[in-house]
Amino acid sequence: MSFPSDIEIAQQATIKPIKEIAKKIDIHEDDLEFYGKYKAKLPLSLQKEKPNGKLILVSAMSPTKYGEGKTTMSIGLVDGLNYIGKNAVAVLREPSLGPVFGLKGGAAGGGYAQVIPMEDINLHFTGDFSAIEKANNLLSAVIDNNLQNPKYSLHIDPKSIAWKRVMDMNDRTLRQIIIGVGAKGNGAMREDGFNITPASEIMAILCLSKNLEDLKFRLGNIYIGKTLDGKAIFSRDLKVVGAMAALLKDAIKPNLVQTLEGNPAILHGGPFASIAQGTNTVIATKTGLSLSDYVVTEAGFGADLGAEKFFHIKCAQSDLKPDAVVLVATIRALKHHAGLTADEFKAENVQSIEKGFCNLEKHIENIQKFGINPIVCINAFPEDYHSEYEKLIELCASKGVKALVSTAFAEGGKGSALLAETVISTIETASNNYHTLYSPENSITEKIEIVAKEIYGASNVNYTNKAQTQLNMINELGFNQFSVCMAKTPMSFSDDEKKIGRPTDFTITIREFEISSGAGFIVPLLGDVMRMPGLPAIPNAERIDIDNEGKIYGLS
Amino acid sequence: MSFPSDIEIAQQATIKPIKEIAKKIDIHEDDLEFYGKYKAKLPLSLQKEKPNGKLILVSAMSPTKYGEGKTTMSIGLVDGLNYIGKNAVAVLREPSLGPVFGLKGGAAGGGYAQVIPMEDINLHFTGDFSAIEKANNLLSAVIDNNLQNPKYSLHIDPKSIAWKRVMDMNDRTLRQIIIGVGAKGNGAMREDGFNITPASEIMAILCLSKNLEDLKFRLGNIYIGKTLDGKAIFSRDLKVVGAMAALLKDAIKPNLVQTLEGNPAILHGGPFASIAQGTNTVIATKTGLSLSDYVVTEAGFGADLGAEKFFHIKCAQSDLKPDAVVLVATIRALKHHAGLTADEFKAENVQSIEKGFCNLEKHIENIQKFGINPIVCINAFPEDYHSEYEKLIELCASKGVKALVSTAFAEGGKGSALLAETVISTIETASNNYHTLYSPENSITEKIEIVAKEIYGASNVNYTNKAQTQLNMINELGFNQFSVCMAKTPMSFSDDEKKIGRPTDFTITIREFEISSGAGFIVPLLGDVMRMPGLPAIPNAERIDIDNEGKIYGLS
Repeated sequence: MSFPSDIEIAQQATIKPIKEIAKKIDIHEDDLEFYGKYKAKLPLSLQKEKPNGKLILVSAMSPTKYGEGKTTMSIGLVDGLNYIGKNAVAVLREPSLGPVFGLKGGAAGGGYAQVIPMEDINLHFTGDFSAIEKANNLLSAVIDNNLQNPKYSLHIDPKSIAWKRVMDMNDRTLRQIIIGVGAKGNGAMREDGFNITPASEIMAILCLSKNLEDLKFRLGNIYIGKTLDGKAIFSRDLKVVGAMAALLKDAIKPNLVQTLEGNPAILHGGPFASIAQGTNTVIATKTGLSLSDYVVTEAGFGADLGAEKFFHIKCAQSDLKPDAVVLVATIRALKHHAGLTADEFKAENVQSIEKGFCNLEKHIENIQKFGINPIVCINAFPEDYHSEYEKLIELCASKGVKALVSTAFAEGGKGSALLAETVISTIETASNNYHTLYSPENSITEKIEIVAKEIYGASNVNYTNKAQTQLNMINELGFNQFSVCMAKTPMSFSDDEKKIGRPTDFTITIREFEISSGAGFIVPLLGDVMRMPGLPAIPNAERIDIDNEGKIYGLS
Repeated sequence: MSFPSDIEIAQQATIKPIKEIAKKIDIHEDDLEFYGKYKAKLPLSLQKEKPNGKLILVSAMSPTKYGEGKTTMSIGLVDGLNYIGKNAVAVLREPSLGPVFGLKGGAAGGGYAQVIPMEDINLHFTGDFSAIEKANNLLSAVIDNNLQNPKYSLHIDPKSIAWKRVMDMNDRTLRQIIIGVGAKGNGAMREDGFNITPASEIMAILCLSKNLEDLKFRLGNIYIGKTLDGKAIFSRDLKVVGAMAALLKDAIKPNLVQTLEGNPAILHGGPFASIAQGTNTVIATKTGLSLSDYVVTEAGFGADLGAEKFFHIKCAQSDLKPDAVVLVATIRALKHHAGLTADEFKAENVQSIEKGFCNLEKHIENIQKFGINPIVCINAFPEDYHSEYEKLIELCASKGVKALVSTAFAEGGKGSALLAETVISTIETASNNYHTLYSPENSITEKIEIVAKEIYGASNVNYTNKAQTQLNMINELGFNQFSVCMAKTPMSFSDDEKKIGRPTDFTITIREFEISSGAGFIVPLLGDVMRMPGLPAIPNAERIDIDNEGKIYGLS
């Protein structure tokens, strides 16, 4: 018998009423806003200003296209911590709906390390993404309505509008569109486009907001574009901040679900990891830390993007501080970074581990630069060899780092028990000198240089003429205290995805900037960034079904 | 002190836990899927095949732009029925989000006849509209993906595609758009457009489906367009019916809320009343009839559209049968149909009531043609005169019809108690020879003629050349057994909204047809139909706000 699929495992699990899960972390039933029996929203009042819990960040080496299983390892670690008797909560992102119909088929962990009910989590969940989509698109409608009504006009220069519409769907034909075609009543004609909903700045804002007041403040700060005479226009000028915030009244509350082993998991927010900070909400993280001794959270892509943004954006804006960092590695990814191709992955190859280690090594060094010694979690796959594990553990040890194999995918929390022990002892005994590599006072170019040179290992940073011009505008707008949120390929430390391993002696080019003044960061674009995925020739949508009794098939 | 606003009244009400409301109609708490404390989804299993409840339809005379208060009167009648000791449930449409930001500001009744929590009901509610939007747009994405991938292509003729995207937002610039602009990877360029979500055929389908199996069957029957060699393409050919149905797994379940007086209200579905059938779901109506002695439901616009479609589409497809019909009238609307202008409405004018009665009279006669004698409910406004009420009551009596004043807006159920008594005695004593005016065997043109002549009072029906050609295609596709769902201005019995009162001796022109083969009807278009509203110069969105404690302002 082959290993069951994710949805088969999830559907065979005994799911507990969410009020029982809540009880585990001392949440009273009356404080729950139920969404069916197995999901609940948590009130903002559970979030303490200075929570006591320890924060464990799960990041990874530079990923391959197969995925390194960060979410699975994060869930496995929470189950592992609970397995050894600790009180731990997973605080993770919500999956985006679009990719469910594309290639991925779902994003709620895998194997025996999943969050459930996975069908609900992957399909609409509690409506947060829809609410964000509506708030985003209300702003778009109001911008175009302003263009349409000269009497109340802000005299927006249509060519300057930086705000796009969003839809949580993999729909490439909406990337670049012409709107307002036809009759005068159809509005002003201009070019626009749809991004996928997690790429909305509203998503980034929701994830970084401390409370409703902060949310409204940030929503008002969104940069829209310029007037015909060059004055910056912000969302607040369009008078719909209240309506946008009202649309987010429930989306701002964290969602409680459970792992397959009945441990609490808070899923909330899901910003793009490329052009935004890529991690769940500050409110969810603080709520988790207020309710539990240990919070395990995840930062998108490799640590050069995910962890760096976690530290310089999320933690910097919210007074959060990581107590431990786990780097997920796979034998497959090490072989990839050694230059092997997919058909070569299955053969035992200890030399390739040695060769590909350079990538993981750089991520280890990077985390050490932030004052934390990471722990390496090797996500076990059936085709791995013990000799390869041994080599990897030895290589990590040479950097002063502990590496452990997790079999959470196949075994759940038991398979991450040793990792959990190591994380606990590291938090309790290792020195933690956590600090950021730059501060708000650094200029935007200094911040970029620091990240590019210290984290990526670049020797030089170039700016296009366009980027230079935009830099001037950013400084004029007084946005130079913002963090930088680098938009770069996750496949390489450099801005060229073909440079695998640990590239050296390379230059990165800042082609363009985007302003996320509501979220509080500037986005330097280091290459083409995909904000609206497409569907593959045979989309996963063709595999999804529901029977007459409501049972769902084809998610993973 | 002025009369409080809708949202002030709603926020001052004592709202009961939804499980208490459920208990009133014998629903066990375990059968509820809570969405917070005050909303719940009901399982499909509560719906009986042959329910015992009596079905009361609330329709209206030809509306004015001010609205005649059908929803308010429907809620008032339910509260009135409960006030006089009956067991009655409101089964109504869900409001669309778009108009909340436009002119309307909400659609959950008014004054002391509202459903609550009105903030939730008006903003996202339980996510049904979002789910419908996603199912609609997944189909669009898959159509364009098919155009993009020659290897798996159905050879769809892009110019023939009849399926549009939807968004629940008043956004006129999306009415007519060009998609797929730019690089080859951005998909095939073609013209498309967004309708507002309630105009999606998926909404009509959800509202007419008996169960999940029927839903899937209907989803598969959606007409998409033609191949390059002229063969019809249906949704099922694109292999995403399962995924679309999976997206609707929760949306298919009815939603339970409460009136201000704590009576049960089931809100479910909200199809456009112009191009679709305009009433709540069959499942919700049958669930209400299974749980309660009396169900009060509403059909959009005037009875020439709302009631006619209710009978010929909803009832015909689902074996439902109305036990009573209430026609809502206002003094204002009668004066309008007498030719008075807004500034003349406030003066006492009994003659105008006599003159404007011709409109209500025709609606009364129409309902009588279906074998039911209607009851007229006069929605009381502060500026009305008793002499006007008396004249109207006398005029209705001359048609053998009882007319009663309802003060439910100002007084809640008490204000509709007399109306409720009359409805009950009518159901118990009056003869009910309900029958439709056409049957599936009639041809499409016969059905159109019957509606146009019998209901509208037209003397002739013309067809454009385009409509003639489309008729042939409809017959070739074997769709002639479908009902017709007339798309006509609601402001007049004719297709010219300026012809108020009771126009005679007029011709209607069928300009075009649309095929809703999933919903099971053909839409004859009798004029321009707005499927995507715009925002007014000062949209209601500017008045909506939320304070730091989460209290919402500016809905109505």
